[in-house]
Amino acid sequence: MKDTDSGNNQPPTSNTRDQDSHFMRLALEQAQLAASLGEVPIGAVVVLDGEVISAGYNRREIDADPSAHAEFCALIRAAEQLGRWRLTGCTVYVTLEPCLMCAGLMQQSRIDRCVYGASDPKGGALGTLYQVHEDQRLNHNFTVTAGVLEQECATILSDFFAGLRARKAGS
Amino acid sequence: MKDTDSGNNQPPTSNTRDQDSHFMRLALEQAQLAASLGEVPIGAVVVLDGEVISAGYNRREIDADPSAHAEFCALIRAAEQLGRWRLTGCTVYVTLEPCLMCAGLMQQSRIDRCVYGASDPKGGALGTLYQVHEDQRLNHNFTVTAGVLEQECATILSDFFAGLRARKAGS
Repeated sequence: MKDTDSGNNQPPTSNTRDQDSHFMRLALEQAQLAASLGEVPIGAVVVLDGEVISAGYNRREIDADPSAHAEFCALIRAAEQLGRWRLTGCTVYVTLEPCLMCAGLMQQSRIDRCVYGASDPKGGALGTLYQVHEDQRLNHNFTVTAGVLEQECATILSDFFAGLRARKAGS
Repeated sequence: MKDTDSGNNQPPTSNTRDQDSHFMRLALEQAQLAASLGEVPIGAVVVLDGEVISAGYNRREIDADPSAHAEFCALIRAAEQLGRWRLTGCTVYVTLEPCLMCAGLMQQSRIDRCVYGASDPKGGALGTLYQVHEDQRLNHNFTVTAGVLEQECATILSDFFAGLRARKAGS
């Protein structure tokens, strides 16, 4: 698929699918930043009213912080940007399906929507192992769109782990 | 019950129940700090090898941070103290049953045990709505003890909300 958005930081206005692909490419750029630091490559951006208000990438090892997942960092920065803990109106784009902690933060911060790329069979909490976003017992639900640029989001992860294994085998 | 630990910061060595009560009293002191700032009074401490290594209280409003739950703050400080994201060996004491976000962080950070006071029928993720600690599909499980100083932990919350309602009715 041709990326009609490359070299243009404005999101396409045509339709939701194009917009989702556009913002997921920005999340993938964040994932690349993680990879360049030797971190598991997962990236995220938070969008409000069609504009990116924050971004984040996985920094768990480098920061020695168990909460430093990509979407967690991006959401905390979004709250800092807006000066409020309620992130009503925000959409989170993240390359890998969020874990329970990150899905819990999305519920706590009252986001509108989460869009993710690859599913996580080991810990995914927005469709795979849990459906946190649609648990009617909780005080907030939100919309989820899965599988946006799924292949690219999965490949950046599998390439990273293949590289790790190759280096391990060679050492 | 007489608090034989008052005025003595050393934990009792007699048995687990006494130790749990001792550390939960310290978590209740943290909850009081939250109340004094007008925050929902929830407090937490993290214990490693019989010593408190960090503490935290709910600061969601004051920090405008959706992740600033008591146990979340305490766990992040514990990781900072230890210089590692793996909190193996740690026990978290918290006055209210953790939500999904906080239970998720406990799972992510590989804690040994969580002890809580009051259950949370609206969002509790360690026994009430979810059993995150014993989900065999996840890559880490941990022990949970519920109901330690349950009455005190519930009362500090109900008193706080009764005060809020009274002020609202009077305004």
